[in-house]
Amino acid sequence: MTTVRDATFDLFRRHGMTTIFGNPGSTELPMLADYPADFRYVLGLQEAVAVGMADGFAQASGTVGHVNLHTAPGVGNGVGAIFNARANKAPLLVTAGQQVRSLISLQANLTNRDAVEVPKPFVKYSAEPPRAADVPHVIAQAIHHAALPPAGPAFVSIPMDDWGVELEERDYVQHIARGVGGRTRPSDDQIQDLAQRLRSARRPMLVAGPEIDAAGGWEDAVELAERQRMTVWASPATGGNRIGFPEDHPAFQGVLPPAVGPLAEFLAGHDLVLVVGSSVFPYYPNIPGDLLPDGTELIAVTSDPDEAARAPMGDAIVADVALTLRALLEALGGEPPDRDAPAVRESAPEPEASTPMSPSEVHATLASLFPADGIVVLESPSSTPALRSQLRLSRPGSYYFSGGGGLGFGLAAAIGVQLAQPQRPVVCILGEGSAQYAITAFWTASAYSIPVKFLVLRNSEYSILKWFSTLENVTGAPGLDLPDLDVAATARSYGVQGETVTSREELHAALAAAFETDAPALVQVDVSAGMALA
Amino acid sequence: MTTVRDATFDLFRRHGMTTIFGNPGSTELPMLADYPADFRYVLGLQEAVAVGMADGFAQASGTVGHVNLHTAPGVGNGVGAIFNARANKAPLLVTAGQQVRSLISLQANLTNRDAVEVPKPFVKYSAEPPRAADVPHVIAQAIHHAALPPAGPAFVSIPMDDWGVELEERDYVQHIARGVGGRTRPSDDQIQDLAQRLRSARRPMLVAGPEIDAAGGWEDAVELAERQRMTVWASPATGGNRIGFPEDHPAFQGVLPPAVGPLAEFLAGHDLVLVVGSSVFPYYPNIPGDLLPDGTELIAVTSDPDEAARAPMGDAIVADVALTLRALLEALGGEPPDRDAPAVRESAPEPEASTPMSPSEVHATLASLFPADGIVVLESPSSTPALRSQLRLSRPGSYYFSGGGGLGFGLAAAIGVQLAQPQRPVVCILGEGSAQYAITAFWTASAYSIPVKFLVLRNSEYSILKWFSTLENVTGAPGLDLPDLDVAATARSYGVQGETVTSREELHAALAAAFETDAPALVQVDVSAGMALA
Repeated sequence: MTTVRDATFDLFRRHGMTTIFGNPGSTELPMLADYPADFRYVLGLQEAVAVGMADGFAQASGTVGHVNLHTAPGVGNGVGAIFNARANKAPLLVTAGQQVRSLISLQANLTNRDAVEVPKPFVKYSAEPPRAADVPHVIAQAIHHAALPPAGPAFVSIPMDDWGVELEERDYVQHIARGVGGRTRPSDDQIQDLAQRLRSARRPMLVAGPEIDAAGGWEDAVELAERQRMTVWASPATGGNRIGFPEDHPAFQGVLPPAVGPLAEFLAGHDLVLVVGSSVFPYYPNIPGDLLPDGTELIAVTSDPDEAARAPMGDAIVADVALTLRALLEALGGEPPDRDAPAVRESAPEPEASTPMSPSEVHATLASLFPADGIVVLESPSSTPALRSQLRLSRPGSYYFSGGGGLGFGLAAAIGVQLAQPQRPVVCILGEGSAQYAITAFWTASAYSIPVKFLVLRNSEYSILKWFSTLENVTGAPGLDLPDLDVAATARSYGVQGETVTSREELHAALAAAFETDAPALVQVDVSAGMALA
Repeated sequence: MTTVRDATFDLFRRHGMTTIFGNPGSTELPMLADYPADFRYVLGLQEAVAVGMADGFAQASGTVGHVNLHTAPGVGNGVGAIFNARANKAPLLVTAGQQVRSLISLQANLTNRDAVEVPKPFVKYSAEPPRAADVPHVIAQAIHHAALPPAGPAFVSIPMDDWGVELEERDYVQHIARGVGGRTRPSDDQIQDLAQRLRSARRPMLVAGPEIDAAGGWEDAVELAERQRMTVWASPATGGNRIGFPEDHPAFQGVLPPAVGPLAEFLAGHDLVLVVGSSVFPYYPNIPGDLLPDGTELIAVTSDPDEAARAPMGDAIVADVALTLRALLEALGGEPPDRDAPAVRESAPEPEASTPMSPSEVHATLASLFPADGIVVLESPSSTPALRSQLRLSRPGSYYFSGGGGLGFGLAAAIGVQLAQPQRPVVCILGEGSAQYAITAFWTASAYSIPVKFLVLRNSEYSILKWFSTLENVTGAPGLDLPDLDVAATARSYGVQGETVTSREELHAALAAAFETDAPALVQVDVSAGMALA
């Protein structure tokens, strides 16, 4: 007979979901019993780590990631990372064990009393099957919800005594055989209208957002920019969890600033701004101003109805961004526009040498030996602009960042990205403060021999907060200094080789050595405090 | 003029809430600006740590604890610890920053879109003030909700531009001056009925739960047991976040087991079971059986209406347990009952020496030099029964445990307990696995010179899960082994002195040395794997 467990693992196989990240407890043991040989289990020592790994894996693999957590407290520890996954639009199945059905009503210990509420409001779907026989169908629904655009996390709570229950074929065969697709292209009239507006624009700008990379629209975005001679900017780094355009491309001008007033200034002079695959916009600091300059129209293309609805200005088209770019290219045809190509951006400035090094100098050093097929996973808030300026990534799937602003993503996600892309070198860039939110991920890197290279910039403070304090005229706030952290030592305590360097020569040598090894390795570098902008 | 910040900090002063635990972000800076000199800020490097510290502080100080987190992702990272605080009935105010009001509707980055939903279902109250002028009143409401029985966490989200807004006196003066009390004693007829049932019992049992300690009912519980010659048991360890009765008392028999069938067997022979300050019962493993033996009646006293309603058997009285005990003693008068005193429990068994040491031997060693006024904060799931057997705590306020079963409480809470009880030695007992859920708390211990003594039992596995696997007939589950963790090294990397020992002599010497120092210190001891029951 087929049990709930048999049917559900067949469902996972059908979706290519043979890696499960997790942190188990007693309520999860019946699911994990007799774990099949064709599945891989990756243990995280805290739930923020397990979810973050699954988020990175989901984004970098193109499959639905799966993380299994321990009833109420385990899901609770993972909620911040589930928030990140939602912001990153990572297709993610979150499962959790639940007490046996007979002990739920009296709330035996570890009963997840309002299980479906715990991960809200950050999941697209949240359910607990009313009967054991419904488990495969409910998990299938969650997988479809997670994958349908906009992708995101979906949650299922499963009473622990359900897994061994035997099923009739009618309970699972049809349910787990289904394929559900949700990629759409806009209607023809929307495409023709968009093409016409672009044709008649004098000086159009393309704003490339993260969804281009997730949808596989990279080459079409490049073709559109080149054929239409568009100036290209990246959407603000704050919400840019992926890079949607080669940042070494001649048409690429840089990253838009993340505040209303300054951003609009960058749009001035462009009569049409086409935003592809980004919210309009992931603003952060409160610097008021006009939303758009006079004479500028904006059109956004996004697969996310919520992004389309909540934008405060401009028109929007809700559809898959890659299919929209392809349809737009076809509608535009081969006719070259009557405008000049944009000016070519300058090379990255060579940072001045200083002691301690500036973050810009660190990133320039990294750029000098960064592998052509390397992937960056970034969580160094005060040096994000410098990284984007110094290291101009040129290939799809090369950049992962926490689009919602939550910390703890980087260190964990890098491990998931590396597992999904074992042939590509993954470099995880962290501040010593941001490393702390998922620090035990070092153990997983070591225990599973996952060869991520970690670059930690240490400045003994939350620099991004001191920068915000200046912006907000805040003085005298406590908790902004971080004395005496030593991430290299902590990493070593978990079995990851780590060293601390101070000079550019040492940094270069240490990074070169790290790229040579097949093991995870960490380089910590002392840097000057403060925000690094270029 | 008085600003929202001025009025709110005056509110905190009125409630003695001059310690704020937190992990700040940009949205919290305006609240923390010009931080008053009479307030203390304690930084945690991850939110699970900040909340856990505040939980321990709240329980051990008797005031409402306060933890300040960073908008959606920060609260998200803290949800598991908020679950623990709810289970522990810790009076806890959780505040979080929110985007400026003008940027919420367009969902600028770090907007906490559905802020009041994030910590649900684990908070008693969750609100975001609709106007800046309402901030002091809403926070006052949250403080009252947190403190009213049953105590628990309450949440307020505050837009960051509210703090500088100037208030009229009518907006705050009355609101922050209020006192709200909720301790009640049962009606006279309920007390008389209870006294009568106890008088007529032939062989009554007292089950002492954690709420006795929280309510200050320890001495009354002892007086009741002695005068009424009652057998005393502790409620099951699973839900026993505090100890409600001196465990070295002659009437004290031990800790009830946490499963339905086995627990009922311990009640057999008692015609009346009086459960004071515990749910009925914090069951965990699913071992079915009768809820009560034939001939046994049960009455529970709890301040928690939910506990009273959901118990599957027996009667319940909803009132403050300390006031109920006092009223019951008065109603019973001095007349001695016609029954014998219970048999005296045997001393703790002396564990056999073995290599590696058993957890029982470790706890016997600890007991041999445990300070009379020491406090235990415990998170070592597979050795909890051994600790309770070997170390028989005799004073109120001496034991803190995570009543909900979530991990991450112990290491963080110990720091909060120590800050609340600076004159008493605090010993935090952890497994090397459970230490990982809030590992960065070591940094706070070091940075703030908080002299907690950490005892880490290392057995290279999740022993409690292997024990459950046997119980559940589960084989072949992955993720249950924990090779190569070295908590002593990790603690050292955060500035806490740590050493690893293997023999009983070394352990004794290391613990003695740790008790001598004024600094935080950690002793890691290698122990045999498996569950330790006595």
